This record gives sequence, structure tokens and C-alpha cells, in this order.
Amino acid sequence: MQLNQNLLKLEQNYLFAEIAARVRKYKEQHPDTELLSLGVNDVTRPLAPAVCNAMSAAAQEMRSAESFHGYGDVQGEYFLRSSIAGYYRSFNVCVEPEDIFVSDGAKSDLANLCDLFAPESTVLLPNPVYPVFYDTSVMAGRRILFSCGTKENGFLPMPEEQLHTDLIYLCSPNNPTGAVYSRAQLQEWVGYAHEHRALIIYDAAYEAYVRSSALPRSIFEIAGAETCAVEVNSFSKMAGFTGVRCSWMIIPRALMHSGQSLHKLWMRRQSTKYNGTSYIVQRGAAAVFSPEGQRQVRADVQYYMENADLIRNALTRSGMFTTGGEHAPYVWMECPYRMKSWDCFDGLLSRCGIAASPGVGFGGQGEGWVRFSSFGSRETIKKAAARLAAADWDALALLYMR
Amino acid sequence: MQLNQNLLKLEQNYLFAEIAARVRKYKEQHPDTELLSLGVNDVTRPLAPAVCNAMSAAAQEMRSAESFHGYGDVQGEYFLRSSIAGYYRSFNVCVEPEDIFVSDGAKSDLANLCDLFAPESTVLLPNPVYPVFYDTSVMAGRRILFSCGTKENGFLPMPEEQLHTDLIYLCSPNNPTGAVYSRAQLQEWVGYAHEHRALIIYDAAYEAYVRSSALPRSIFEIAGAETCAVEVNSFSKMAGFTGVRCSWMIIPRALMHSGQSLHKLWMRRQSTKYNGTSYIVQRGAAAVFSPEGQRQVRADVQYYMENADLIRNALTRSGMFTTGGEHAPYVWMECPYRMKSWDCFDGLLSRCGIAASPGVGFGGQGEGWVRFSSFGSRETIKKAAARLAAADWDALALLYMR
Repeated sequence: MQLNQNLLKLEQNYLFAEIAARVRKYKEQHPDTELLSLGVNDVTRPLAPAVCNAMSAAAQEMRSAESFHGYGDVQGEYFLRSSIAGYYRSFNVCVEPEDIFVSDGAKSDLANLCDLFAPESTVLLPNPVYPVFYDTSVMAGRRILFSCGTKENGFLPMPEEQLHTDLIYLCSPNNPTGAVYSRAQLQEWVGYAHEHRALIIYDAAYEAYVRSSALPRSIFEIAGAETCAVEVNSFSKMAGFTGVRCSWMIIPRALMHSGQSLHKLWMRRQSTKYNGTSYIVQRGAAAVFSPEGQRQVRADVQYYMENADLIRNALTRSGMFTTGGEHAPYVWMECPYRMKSWDCFDGLLSRCGIAASPGVGFGGQGEGWVRFSSFGSRETIKKAAARLAAADWDALALLYMR
Repeated sequence: MQLNQNLLKLEQNYLFAEIAARVRKYKEQHPDTELLSLGVNDVTRPLAPAVCNAMSAAAQEMRSAESFHGYGDVQGEYFLRSSIAGYYRSFNVCVEPEDIFVSDGAKSDLANLCDLFAPESTVLLPNPVYPVFYDTSVMAGRRILFSCGTKENGFLPMPEEQLHTDLIYLCSPNNPTGAVYSRAQLQEWVGYAHEHRALIIYDAAYEAYVRSSALPRSIFEIAGAETCAVEVNSFSKMAGFTGVRCSWMIIPRALMHSGQSLHKLWMRRQSTKYNGTSYIVQRGAAAVFSPEGQRQVRADVQYYMENADLIRNALTRSGMFTTGGEHAPYVWMECPYRMKSWDCFDGLLSRCGIAASPGVGFGGQGEGWVRFSSFGSRETIKKAAARLAAADWDALALLYMR
């Protein structure tokens, strides 16, 4: 029997294991310093009470035969798809419940979308970006091209007309750089996709962190997107669902490729390989959109953004250059003196007792940068900000630059 | 851009749509007859109170920062994997928590397993069987061979030595035939798998319905299985989780193929394309194995099996030949007078007001058979049993045989 050779090509991602190993060693050597973790993707705020109550109630509904729910709609329960459509309407984007598919996570959806396209498809990935785009493209055996984020383009690479691709991944607000495309920039990407008959896979997982109405929150704010784009979004960062698991994808019924409706193909894929999202979870997700739920989850987003402000201001005050953190929970810092990501990581760990994420872990273009996450508690972030503001970057570079 | 041609090859499964259309027409023409549905896969008993309470409590745990759970172990929470291992120990099967992966459904796992093997792999499928084996094999672009279930072999096909395959799907107790392999038969399959260096993918989703200790409940009761088999099982039919979504797969760490650990490959696949199962759902699943939970879910299985007895006895009394229903929730009936499945379906619908499942919907070998499900309420099943016992099969055949 032959194994899937593309799966074997996938390099083990040692980023988190390596971070954990270095942190462990540091803790052994510095038992008295409080280590501050600003490297994690995971949220720390508890779930909104409205969500907890909705899930408790849904669990109790299942107790009697009259209100029991068995197999549900594989596309997602209509009550949740309607609420999601209503959410989009609240920022003037028209999405119909019929175009929405509910699932157990943005990662699953982004990965499973690969099932729709031939292995020969070429894919264009931003660099740096969320590693799942790259890993799942490798697993699918695709040819991979990169659009490079740099300090000069504000980590918002634009299309190159001469470059042909079939699939385009965009992530805005971006993980790890926190950069957010403008409407004009997305319009260019939509134009490029139409010219090349390519599909945009738009990852909007950090959409709730956009604080200005001048910036787009959905690809479907852009004219023409409904015939060249799908959008993936999640309750994970918007409402703390990292352990609850719920997400959605929008595949407009108007979206055609090679004479086939991608909406219908995805339905066929989901009907064959998926059996719907937990009813209890979907009830919790719908509660996110109740007035009470919205008040609660927006307060949490606000909390994290105040954390981001604290980190960003501390770094700026101590002379560092950053992007992100304004409309995203991640602050992206240029390492001082052109230090490499891992050297700067070691310096931050040893001199400040702070664990960040080395930028190079998100792609080669991340070399020379580190990412700070604002998903910690206020207490942790305040301490980290104080240490960062007081950091002696010259000494840090001198000691840790290799 | 090229679409996945294998996905396009997948025929739309019209079985359920066709059943629904015929039932609708019947209801219009017979507004005064109560239609009894014995065609559904879905359970009707409510969730065990122990499970509902565990999920309610877990939802409330998420309410405070101290007991909040974010991203979990992608393999499944250890408390649940330990409980599953304990369940296997209760029928003397040794499975370690480290060998278990928790996920959101047996369908997802059976489908996603395809990611591990090259498209060139040959697959051997029982016929008739659960259609997902076939559909996902088509989507993966595999060469498909069939091992044929017949009345003569009791719908328990055995390996043919001269036939080479890479992947072997077995489903026991079988959906739709209710047939259950003996230990000696499974031992033959394990021997065959070793000779051909093939992998057995063992679907044990109906394991909880086995009523005799003379019959195996897991492939891992068989010597040598740990180096040639994986097992998929689910809470759906064992504990009514069709709307809650939870399942598990056992991939022994001892299982190697082409020099690679399948356990590690699956871990890599899951880490790349999945983000773990809902914490709340996993707490509910763990409660299934509490003494109270076991008492409750076993009572439900017992309830369905009494339904199966009612159906089976009624059919036997009226002279029909059946298999299954003894250690499985499905009763598999040979159509009278060599009628075809759909003709018999029409006859049962028109003469008895009963909707069954045409056997041919589960593969060509199901032609001439129909499946009755015992997942209805006792009231429905009692009425159906009375109608079946009193059925005039001669008239039914005369009128509906084409």
C-alpha cells in the first residue's frame, strides 16, 4: 500500500515545540522570575454568560423526546445561519442564510476546501501568514507561490498581474502581522481574481477586531466578490469559542467555476464527509448575536484591544517599530538591529521574561520580526508592557544577536 | 482552474430524496392513514439525563476565567480517552488512551482517513454497506472492489485469497443487514490483511447492540489486529449523539505501513486539518461512561432492541425471511417472490403505510431486500409490527411487482 506522499512531504512544525522547550529551560534557570506568555493564540476571557446559558438550555432541551434534536441540517441550523446573515447586515453586507455553511472550525473549513480542486491547481499564499494555508496546500500536493509582505508594503502584498494562480488566500486582519487591507486594495485583488479566473479564499477570522468603518470587514463588501470569493469566519476569536468549536463559511450561490457551482460542490463534499455541527454548540453560537451576547462579546474584544494598545504603546515608547495591534489582536514588531526572529525571541525571554512568537515561524518573510498576542489577562499584559517599555534593546541585541 | 475530478464523479445519492418524494405522494393520496416511518437512521430517544447535566455543567464552567477551556488536545481530552479505554476494558479489550483519537463523528473519521493513502490504493468494500465507504472512496479516486454479501453467506463475505487490496472496510454489526462477524471470521480477515499488507478500517458504530458475549464487539479482540487495523466508533447510536456529534477512532501506535507509523500520520493530519472536539460535547461523552450514564444509555439500546424484536417477530410470523435485528438495530428482509427493493418499498408504503429503506440503496447486493430500522418510538413500532404481521404479501407482490 502506498501512503499519501504529499502528507509525508509536510514538515513537522516545530515552532510551538521549540518555543515550549526554550521556555521550559528558561523557567528552570529562573525559578523566581514570572514568565509572561505573549505567544499564545488562545483566548483567556471566559465565554459570554449569554452563550453559556444558551448551551445549558440546549443541553436540557435534549432531555425529552419532544424537544430532542438528532441529525441536523448538514449546512447548519437555519436559526444560526439567519443570525449570521443578520450580523453581516449590521455592517451593511448582504449575505443570505442560504449562502452560509456552519462548521466546527475555520481550520477545518480552510483545510477541507482543498477537496474541491485538482491537485494541479496553483495557490498564491501571503507570506507571512497563518501556517495552515501552507500546510494544507502541501498536503494537497499543490504548486505554491508567495505574495510577499514587507515593511515597505505594510505587510499587505498586492497582486502581480503577470503571475498566474488558481487559488488566492487572503487573511485580513492578518495573523501574524495585524495588517488590514483597505477596500481599494481588496478591489484590486477581486479584479485580479476575475482576470485569472481564480478563487479568493478570504480568512476573516479577526474581522471583529476592526475598529474603523473605513476598513472592510468582509470580502463581500467588494463589488464582484460574490463571483470570485469565499469567506471563512469563526466564533473562536470573536466570541472565545476556541474550546467550543464553531465557524462559518460563505459560498455564494452565484459562484461558478468550470461550469460548476462551488456552492453545490461544497454541499456535496459536506454531505459526504461531514454530519453537521453540534446542536448545542449552534445554540451557543446563535446567542452570540443576541443583544446581550453582542454586548458581552464586544466587551471582550474591547478588552483584548486595550491590551494590544498597551503592548503597542510600550514598544513605540521604547523606540521599536510595530505594525498591527490597531485593528487586530496581534502586534508585529521589527527586531532591533536587524536581529533574527529567534535571537530576538531568546533576548526577550532572557532579558524581559517574555515569551513572544518568532515571526519566521509564519514564513520566511517573517524573519526579523516577532509577534505579540494580546489574548492574555490585563495583569499579564500590564506587567509585560512595563518590562517592554523599560527594555534595554541595545544590551539585548548585543547579548543575543548571533 | 481545475476542479477535483473525483468529486465530480460522485453520483448524487438520490435514495433519500426519492424515498421522501414517494412518501409525500402517498401522504397526499392517503391523508387519513398514519404513515409509519421505519426508514430513518436517526434515533428518537432523548439524551440520557446524565449526559445533559454534564453538558450543562460544562457550559457553565466556561463562564469564569478560572475554569474556562480554550483550545484542547487535538487528539481529544485525556479524561474522555481514559473513559473510552475503561469501556473497552469492561469487555476485556485492551486499548490505551494514547491510541484513541476523539472527533466529531464516525462519518468524518471514515472520510478523512482517506487523506493518509495514495489515490492509487485499491479498496475492498462490503456490498451492501453504509454508502459513505463507497462515496468517499470515489472522492479519493480509488479503485474499488467489492466483497459480496449474499443470503448464502449470511451477508458476511469472507476474504478471497487471490484478490489483492490495500484497504479493507468492514462494518460489524453491519448497516444495513444487521449481520455480525464471529471472532473466527474476523481472525480470517486479520490473517488476510497481514498477508496482503492491507489495512482493515473497522466500523464498529453499532457495537453497543451486540447482545451476546459469543460475538466480538471490537476488532481488537482479535490477535494481530493491532498491527493491521484501525477502529471507528461513535456515540451516535450508542448514546443518541446524532445531534451532539462525538466519535472516536483507535489507531494503535504499533500500526506501521511503509515504514511509517499510521498513528503519527493521523496525528499530523488532525493537527493540520482539525482543531479538536468541543469541550462541552466531550464532557457529555465522558458522562456516557459514568455508572448512571451507562444505566441510562443501555436502557435506550435495550428499548430499540425490543423494537427490533417486535419487527423481526412480526415478519417471521407472517412468513418473511429476515437477517439482523438480533445484535443490531436493523432488520433486513428478503422481499417476497423475488420482488425488487423499490417494488417492495412501494408495496409496503401503499398496502401497509410503512416507509422502509430499499436495500438496493446500499449497493447492488441489496437488490431484493429492504431494511427496517428500530429507532422509532414503541408506539410506532407496535403499530408497524401489527400491520406487518397482518400483511397480505401475496396481494402486495401481485400488485406491486413490476
